[in-house]
Amino acid sequence: MSWYIQCGRDGDVVLSSRVRLARNLDGYSFPHRMTNDKMIELRDRAVECLHSLPSADTDKFVSLNMDLLPEPDRLALVEKHLISDELAKGGSGQSVCISKDESVSIMVNEEDHLRVQVMNCGFSLDQAYRKAEEIAIFLEKNLPIAYSDQYGFLTACPTNTGTGMRASVMVHLPALTLLGRMQPLIDGLSHAGFAVRGYLGEHSQANGNVYQLSNQITLGISEINVLLSFKRMVEEVLSLERKLRVELFESNPEKIRDRVYRSYGELMYARMITDSEAMKRISDLRLGIALGFFEEAGMETLSKIAAFIGPAGVQKNSGEVLSPTEQEVRRAEMIRRILRENTAR
Amino acid sequence: MSWYIQCGRDGDVVLSSRVRLARNLDGYSFPHRMTNDKMIELRDRAVECLHSLPSADTDKFVSLNMDLLPEPDRLALVEKHLISDELAKGGSGQSVCISKDESVSIMVNEEDHLRVQVMNCGFSLDQAYRKAEEIAIFLEKNLPIAYSDQYGFLTACPTNTGTGMRASVMVHLPALTLLGRMQPLIDGLSHAGFAVRGYLGEHSQANGNVYQLSNQITLGISEINVLLSFKRMVEEVLSLERKLRVELFESNPEKIRDRVYRSYGELMYARMITDSEAMKRISDLRLGIALGFFEEAGMETLSKIAAFIGPAGVQKNSGEVLSPTEQEVRRAEMIRRILRENTAR
Repeated sequence: MSWYIQCGRDGDVVLSSRVRLARNLDGYSFPHRMTNDKMIELRDRAVECLHSLPSADTDKFVSLNMDLLPEPDRLALVEKHLISDELAKGGSGQSVCISKDESVSIMVNEEDHLRVQVMNCGFSLDQAYRKAEEIAIFLEKNLPIAYSDQYGFLTACPTNTGTGMRASVMVHLPALTLLGRMQPLIDGLSHAGFAVRGYLGEHSQANGNVYQLSNQITLGISEINVLLSFKRMVEEVLSLERKLRVELFESNPEKIRDRVYRSYGELMYARMITDSEAMKRISDLRLGIALGFFEEAGMETLSKIAAFIGPAGVQKNSGEVLSPTEQEVRRAEMIRRILRENTAR
Repeated sequence: MSWYIQCGRDGDVVLSSRVRLARNLDGYSFPHRMTNDKMIELRDRAVECLHSLPSADTDKFVSLNMDLLPEPDRLALVEKHLISDELAKGGSGQSVCISKDESVSIMVNEEDHLRVQVMNCGFSLDQAYRKAEEIAIFLEKNLPIAYSDQYGFLTACPTNTGTGMRASVMVHLPALTLLGRMQPLIDGLSHAGFAVRGYLGEHSQANGNVYQLSNQITLGISEINVLLSFKRMVEEVLSLERKLRVELFESNPEKIRDRVYRSYGELMYARMITDSEAMKRISDLRLGIALGFFEEAGMETLSKIAAFIGPAGVQKNSGEVLSPTEQEVRRAEMIRRILRENTAR
């Protein structure tokens, strides 16, 4: 089962955890300055090495060359957070290796030569870090990874130099959002060296009250200490969101119940729906589940819907290119089917 | 079964038909100039006479004295169109006699001494007229009904003098409304001697795209001719509405389907709902049924809901006085229950 349709620890707020490690190879320019031949050479070397990674059958990698992959498939990978916008452009020499359960994805010749990314459901940064570190160590043993005793791992952009690590969590913050508390929180976190972004990472808007929190500092601090301070910060956001949810509910329980159930009614019966409306409705349902009164659908079902209803996901599912109106119709169909197949009772 | 939870001829547009005959008694002033003693005397005489009306058991009348009836009950009668706002004030000497199936209601000491009103589902003016006429003839035989050879039946307000008859239909006109065609229609009908009003008659707003059409002319024309021209007019509105519904649907079927099914989802799951929103949603469902694609609920079920969810109906159903918020919660409960109990399939 794909990792993202499970509900993990603290899944009422933390939808998923991710650790990414950036690594580069000695003897090659950084990707933005590389010739195409060199990119292909490096790519082949990296992919071969990755396929030799000792692992269980279920963890075996599929490697995809971006220039051979049709655009809808590339966009669907972006919506599942498996590749970046940069890789989705489909350049020659760029690839991604993805584990069967889609929890590990290793981008080759993105901004850096190698970006090892591990995602898990719920609040599970240590687990994600251990897995990413294990792969990085294997790579270091088999490839000439660029490392400086003074700076640490060398990267194309200095903001990653040092640990090369970016830890992030996707958090669902409906109460903080509804009560207008997000902006002060974002300001406070930025000040403390963390970033807050929308659902699809950098430059994106929050979609359905889902935000990405991540660390910004990579230099002069160990991975373990970064993770410790990052986890402490997430714990604080988590407690605050939980407290505000209860306050929000208790201030007007009927209104919250009404909002949640109406959203369920809309998802159960709409014949056309935009991505953005669907995410807002899913946010309401997640809130209802977390508050304990909504039982018609489970968190896993909602994560499944959220994972498949982006524009690319809908087109990939239907196997054809669709107009925006056709996408809305197809999206509504998919949501109705998944909700009916996964009724919690 | 109460007449208003059935669906009659042309029930896709005409929800109900009503004929009202105004009659007064010689030897009494009109109600607005009567003493209370005289009103009570007349009321007792009229009620006694009505109870002697030869009729089947199911047609037997219940008579209710307005000054003894609690306000919530009076308001619930207004919402069922059985008494007028005037009678709902609960004045002494004012009464109503209602048949068991609620198709006949005779108001005593409203604007006129007697107002005989017969309602039926669907487009059934002749049937309503025959029944009203039968009762009026019985009254004429047993009471000194005021009649002038020159003017016809005498009434408190000259706009009713002559036949004393008002024929009306409740019509559901979503397409005419959505396409912005109501105002020109209202202007045209007024010009031709007909009136267009909202759901609860005079001075009320259209609720859920339901309008009351009625004749205005009572003097110098026979009942039969009034009914003939009125029915012709209704037939025209009926055809126009049906034609526009098809046009509206064909111009964007998915959008109409989406609108109808979302309204169903809202009614099935809302935890709070206002009267006015519920009527709008019901209008959408009626449109979906008429267009042939919506089968989750039937016209009868919707009429049942519409008949019971006014503010007074909701309070009467729950047996207590409710705040507006409590009414919304209770209304949503009633709607969910009725829809689930009456699933068409």
